[in-house]
Amino acid sequence: MNYEEVMKLALERGFYFPSCEVYSDAQAGFWEYGPSGVGLKNKFLELWRRELIRRDGMLEIDGSQIMSKSVFEASGHLGNFADPIIQCTKCNSTFRADRTIAEISQIEIPESADLEEFDNAIIQNNIRCPKCKGDFDKTRKFNMMFRVGIGPQEEEAYLRPETCQSIFVDFPRLFKTMRGKLPLGIAQVGKSFRNEIAPRQSLLRLREFYQAEIEVFCNPSKLQEVENFSEIENTVIRVQTDADPVSMTCKEAVDSGVIPNKFVAYYLGMLMEFYEKTGIDVTKSRFRKLGDKEKAFYAEVAFDFEVETTIGWLELVACNYRSDYDLSSHAKMSKEKFEVMDNDEKVLPHVFEISMGIDRSLYTILEHSLKDDKEHQRVVLSLKPYLAPVHVGVLSLVKKDGLKEKTDEIYLKIKRKCDAFLDHSGAIGRRYRRLDEIGAPFAVTVDHQTVEDETVTIRKRDSMEQSRVKISELESIIISDTSFP
Amino acid sequence: MNYEEVMKLALERGFYFPSCEVYSDAQAGFWEYGPSGVGLKNKFLELWRRELIRRDGMLEIDGSQIMSKSVFEASGHLGNFADPIIQCTKCNSTFRADRTIAEISQIEIPESADLEEFDNAIIQNNIRCPKCKGDFDKTRKFNMMFRVGIGPQEEEAYLRPETCQSIFVDFPRLFKTMRGKLPLGIAQVGKSFRNEIAPRQSLLRLREFYQAEIEVFCNPSKLQEVENFSEIENTVIRVQTDADPVSMTCKEAVDSGVIPNKFVAYYLGMLMEFYEKTGIDVTKSRFRKLGDKEKAFYAEVAFDFEVETTIGWLELVACNYRSDYDLSSHAKMSKEKFEVMDNDEKVLPHVFEISMGIDRSLYTILEHSLKDDKEHQRVVLSLKPYLAPVHVGVLSLVKKDGLKEKTDEIYLKIKRKCDAFLDHSGAIGRRYRRLDEIGAPFAVTVDHQTVEDETVTIRKRDSMEQSRVKISELESIIISDTSFP
Repeated sequence: MNYEEVMKLALERGFYFPSCEVYSDAQAGFWEYGPSGVGLKNKFLELWRRELIRRDGMLEIDGSQIMSKSVFEASGHLGNFADPIIQCTKCNSTFRADRTIAEISQIEIPESADLEEFDNAIIQNNIRCPKCKGDFDKTRKFNMMFRVGIGPQEEEAYLRPETCQSIFVDFPRLFKTMRGKLPLGIAQVGKSFRNEIAPRQSLLRLREFYQAEIEVFCNPSKLQEVENFSEIENTVIRVQTDADPVSMTCKEAVDSGVIPNKFVAYYLGMLMEFYEKTGIDVTKSRFRKLGDKEKAFYAEVAFDFEVETTIGWLELVACNYRSDYDLSSHAKMSKEKFEVMDNDEKVLPHVFEISMGIDRSLYTILEHSLKDDKEHQRVVLSLKPYLAPVHVGVLSLVKKDGLKEKTDEIYLKIKRKCDAFLDHSGAIGRRYRRLDEIGAPFAVTVDHQTVEDETVTIRKRDSMEQSRVKISELESIIISDTSFP
Repeated sequence: MNYEEVMKLALERGFYFPSCEVYSDAQAGFWEYGPSGVGLKNKFLELWRRELIRRDGMLEIDGSQIMSKSVFEASGHLGNFADPIIQCTKCNSTFRADRTIAEISQIEIPESADLEEFDNAIIQNNIRCPKCKGDFDKTRKFNMMFRVGIGPQEEEAYLRPETCQSIFVDFPRLFKTMRGKLPLGIAQVGKSFRNEIAPRQSLLRLREFYQAEIEVFCNPSKLQEVENFSEIENTVIRVQTDADPVSMTCKEAVDSGVIPNKFVAYYLGMLMEFYEKTGIDVTKSRFRKLGDKEKAFYAEVAFDFEVETTIGWLELVACNYRSDYDLSSHAKMSKEKFEVMDNDEKVLPHVFEISMGIDRSLYTILEHSLKDDKEHQRVVLSLKPYLAPVHVGVLSLVKKDGLKEKTDEIYLKIKRKCDAFLDHSGAIGRRYRRLDEIGAPFAVTVDHQTVEDETVTIRKRDSMEQSRVKISELESIIISDTSFP
């Protein structure tokens, strides 16, 4: 199923939809999660906590989104976090230089290139405004951070463009008070903000978006010493350096030098195991090693975890070895100590980052799970049962003859332990279809036999198989089949 | 234990601490949750979902924090959401007029009063700048929303000052696509932002803060028809109208007219049952009915849920009957239809709101749970076990003789199902104290007997009672005692 079909589902079944949509001044790049989207997102994050945070004994924090100017002076975002933009001298429309040039003349210039490169390409290829054919002004840099003014004097501060800056700034306190030991993973889930020139494709390029970032602080002289490496050494990942992606175990990737050390391989392996459990088809994934021109300004080694979808390869996670770029910048700017003791050695830790885009991951889960079941004339969202926003629909065949009351009673019993949805109205077939579309693994139907023998029909989403079970057994069947692995 | 003692715990044990604290330009009113704080917050929200959202079959959404200008024109925030402020003509310092007047001359003027009232009080009482004794300029209104500029043209938008506006704006789509039926509760957890002039007291007056808001959409002609009223009719709440708070059941409150209808009473009762389960001492709580001058500009009837702490009564929840104020404003401004069908009747729903401050609730839980156990020379955080950030500490008595390995093995086994903390170093007594301070209900110690007979010592936080149990029984003991009620 393609992007448009996922969008249709998202809009009609409460996964996501545009923010402020009733207003004509609604800005592009802002979306809301509806009830199905919130359910899926919360369960995705619970899986992330189980498979990465708790598994590795990491710490999780939740910091402010508005941060002070010094943070972004030190991080480099005030100086470097800018898009090249061009403005039409006639109609004043603004575009991203790199994208407009690529779209019109198929010339790929990296966004971090010198501004003259864009100007030259525009002149040489006679590129004009796509809207009015006017001439473009010279390319300039546009900083992508949103500025906010604090207090009546409007003191300068910014909405964070990435969640990790709080982790870096908080590192000295966290290491000390939480009895840190290297390597130490510190994670955060939250919103980040980027003033994109051309937000597009719903969840895929947002101005306000969710990240789940992990920063692992380590001793750079111990990148080959990973205590639990054996846990993932046989996990297969697909790595792309130049040509096509190649499948190999994490151990092979390290031994052959494709991945520089065990430390990086360990986290890539764990990340792969996590994504396998999300239901994304990982045979369509790759860890793509980035070239020097593509890497973020702070990254020494970088792998993007990308997954193939109907609109191309999507970057779901950026894995960056940021070295001591951030800690040394913050140490210099703040005059605070960021070194810590690793046994008897004083070190300024290096950082390996696993920066996950939550919104894009959820889109990909939806696209890879949505099936057009032509044989049964239905669309079915085959989510992993533990990620389904609704575990079970509880339906009455008809409302009369005491069936409504019996259904309410069953719903009441199971709704605190499972995510249950009560539905009394409409044809039973249509109610099943609707549950299939939100990915509910089970539907339970109360009929006349129920009031006689305390049994109900339970229907499974994928097989559509129906069987009769005792009401007393219902809860344990649903819980055991929808529990996290 | 008082505010300062809670603050000490918060800073030293990873509950919360100031944002950007390593920088001198860090702004007041921004705080971070550390690992213990995140654990407590996530569990508090899980309890909220169980006891309110799922119990009542509500929908939960997650909307954008940046919203367009029209939203706040319609909501009244652009016009009305302002604090009265005064600026010193000599040193330019700015203060909130109402607070400064109250602090200096003990005159209470509501923040919504006419500006002349403040000016008159300042002149009559000769109130001068607390910093430099200079004269104040005339009182003016300062809008508390943070403005952000979208795209290269910096189009006007705002960080939301309350989460509920997304719920109102999204109501037409949600009611339609989620097969809504009145009454319908729609909830949201997320950040809101207010440019406070004088943020203070850490989590208690923040510029960036967490709300959990519920908006219940209802047919205003059916406020006495509540299907599940019997569930809460005997729940005791404490209501304050004029004099001291009086304890009464929800049924008595409605029958005596203290609460205007069953609809409002139903949600206040449910809220009370929720707070009982958080461990807050609800004998120190009251639903205080607000007078006309105190109410928010959109509220027809308002009860504040307040709890007594060592720094006075804290408002944890605002319960506002907002009538059709919001939906009719948005309908008018957007020209969209906000009426829905309630059986055969077309209605513009009224809204009852339960607006919870998460940060303040967490502070109150900490203050009410923190005990100075002088007899045993320890501080203990007696959190409800299901809210504890760490369920169990797993400790080795000593590291040698295979005890470290055995401890690691036990930790590995239970850490995916429970929140476990592994600790090998330091005197065992000090490790117990530290676990007591973060509220861990259990500590498990591995000693020499463990390697002989597969038993460990399990110590309970509150009683400090120790007993020996088999490793094989550990997981089920901990899970059953830390599960949500």
